[in-house]
Amino acid sequence: MSQLSATLELAKQLISRRSVTPEDDGCQELMIERLEALGFHIERLQFEEVTNFWARRGSKGPLFCFAGHTDVVPTGPEANWDHPPFDPVIEDGFLCGRGAADMKGSLAAFITALERFLEHHPDHDGSIALLITSDEEGPFVNGTTRVIDHLEARNEKITWCIVGEPSSTVKVGDVIKNGRRGSISGDLTIRGVQGHVAYPHLVENPIHLAAPALNDLASEVWDEGNEFFPPTSLQISNIHAGTGATNVVPGHIDVQFNLRFSTEVTAEQIKERTYAILNRYGLNFDINWTLSGNPFITDRGDLVDACIDSIKAVTGLETELSTSGGTSDGRFIAPTGAQVVELGPINATIHKVNERVKADDLDTLSSLYENIMAKLLTR
Amino acid sequence: MSQLSATLELAKQLISRRSVTPEDDGCQELMIERLEALGFHIERLQFEEVTNFWARRGSKGPLFCFAGHTDVVPTGPEANWDHPPFDPVIEDGFLCGRGAADMKGSLAAFITALERFLEHHPDHDGSIALLITSDEEGPFVNGTTRVIDHLEARNEKITWCIVGEPSSTVKVGDVIKNGRRGSISGDLTIRGVQGHVAYPHLVENPIHLAAPALNDLASEVWDEGNEFFPPTSLQISNIHAGTGATNVVPGHIDVQFNLRFSTEVTAEQIKERTYAILNRYGLNFDINWTLSGNPFITDRGDLVDACIDSIKAVTGLETELSTSGGTSDGRFIAPTGAQVVELGPINATIHKVNERVKADDLDTLSSLYENIMAKLLTR
Repeated sequence: MSQLSATLELAKQLISRRSVTPEDDGCQELMIERLEALGFHIERLQFEEVTNFWARRGSKGPLFCFAGHTDVVPTGPEANWDHPPFDPVIEDGFLCGRGAADMKGSLAAFITALERFLEHHPDHDGSIALLITSDEEGPFVNGTTRVIDHLEARNEKITWCIVGEPSSTVKVGDVIKNGRRGSISGDLTIRGVQGHVAYPHLVENPIHLAAPALNDLASEVWDEGNEFFPPTSLQISNIHAGTGATNVVPGHIDVQFNLRFSTEVTAEQIKERTYAILNRYGLNFDINWTLSGNPFITDRGDLVDACIDSIKAVTGLETELSTSGGTSDGRFIAPTGAQVVELGPINATIHKVNERVKADDLDTLSSLYENIMAKLLTR
Repeated sequence: MSQLSATLELAKQLISRRSVTPEDDGCQELMIERLEALGFHIERLQFEEVTNFWARRGSKGPLFCFAGHTDVVPTGPEANWDHPPFDPVIEDGFLCGRGAADMKGSLAAFITALERFLEHHPDHDGSIALLITSDEEGPFVNGTTRVIDHLEARNEKITWCIVGEPSSTVKVGDVIKNGRRGSISGDLTIRGVQGHVAYPHLVENPIHLAAPALNDLASEVWDEGNEFFPPTSLQISNIHAGTGATNVVPGHIDVQFNLRFSTEVTAEQIKERTYAILNRYGLNFDINWTLSGNPFITDRGDLVDACIDSIKAVTGLETELSTSGGTSDGRFIAPTGAQVVELGPINATIHKVNERVKADDLDTLSSLYENIMAKLLTR
């Protein structure tokens, strides 16, 4: 029971730090203290307002890395919480507080897994690293992507990477993410000719012009998905036009949309097909594109198999491979050639009031991380 | 030349009063002074912040009425004007200032027309009245509509009404408005199910749901118009949906639209057909309707003929009957059974910077008003 309590104890210490993005509020120093005691070499990497570190133990390959973040999303009004979000408590078997599930619980589980693993395997194969940022929930400009640039510049390559994002749905380990869809956003402006509603022959109503094109965009079948990915999906998130006056036809309409896309289409193809749809209606438009990440996939292999086998061994579950859900920092790590899997606690309460995680689940998660390292780093 | 100068002189006095809606700033007392000298009985009708008066000379029928407004639309930044908007000047043959065309020029032209007409026909047939408000450009709640209610309550009926709105396009008298389209607005909310863009199977995107229905609404052929009216036209003026976040599908979309409609459809039919279009897509929606006015038409008859003949006699023009353009207070007067025609100066500069009217046109307009009264009220 002692090593399990160690996970909960560390998770509570991390949750009590108010590390709303991009703040770290001492979380990383707490981790670093434990890692230095284990013989890790630490590189503190402050980029602008974002606190990051890269910790490595050993210089040989292969390199196993745990990636995660110390920042949390805002709490909203704290009065809406049953308990103050930064005063962690254990209640009815749940650890409650902001970050309990996303992802301070995972950070604690990995540190304690590491402590146990190194106690039993001080001379393991390869090396172990941690890539930790305080900007995963924010603009992700000065976080993981900058650390990866730093590593790439000296050709330091991660072989296997576990991202501690809460991947589980009902039981810890029931789902792991072995890839993610791509994400691309468009800021679309369609222009017409402003005028008075009473003189329809003098206006070109951009809302009317946009309607059939937006309908086509929303109905487009971009692909059918594949073995790893659901079909690519476009969603319009924001649409605004109008002067506020009810008797004026506005001059333009602004539309924001996002596609989560599979490996069956590329970002360039999405742009071309969007232009083709809009041009079908002869529209006068501009689009500013933002590519948040290309899709990536980690097929069956050392890492996925180690996860599947460990989950089966520790929990008895047949885990499900999934690429659904939002983006994660895995998209910055996968392009380096690393195998990347997300494995963490149940995601039911993340980003919500009364975020919580089953206390036992963090102990299970710590065992999973330990078991995976044993499979990959000991022969 | 003396009576013509009188029109310009009075127009300048009216323009120099800063009567931005709902302010009257003494315009009506200036008119009342002149009307009392002519033997009119005055009823000052202050409703809330709106200043109105009803002036009548004589008690017999038929009743000829001039309807108009002393309020003007805002000037915008006065620095954008060539001359201060409330310091009227005559430049290059134009009277310049806010309200010169809409419609203090008309007010002055009618007062001087009346003075000349009564000088020559003190014992004319029927009666003459003026219905003047300081809220035609504003919310039109406490203006003409309240005065009409007041008259209707005592069964005082207008037979013929000239509204002094600037109806002319190139030459004064080239167009008169013998009716107006109806105007009805809808505030439409279409509901979906909010959620994260990454989980399209869990959301019902109200923007996507709305797009085909809005396209159908915008493309609907409501009618073909008729001899008096152009086809009914729907314009969407405002559309808003979105939380601001680009990764969230909003829960609803708000759409405002307006129809200018002919006598070929009724407001009720417009509502029914709108519901049918939206129901075609099984949408979950609400609409709040605002009927600003039903269409009205004054066919050939005493008043229209008097206008046509006077315009021919005074200017040599064959006038055009039109029902185009925005609403006017005629919509409140016509439902009482009155014949209503709008006749006023050229509308090219109304509501704009450097509003102006040809000085000669006001003299012509005064002659027109005088000639029309002579046709209707003397045998």
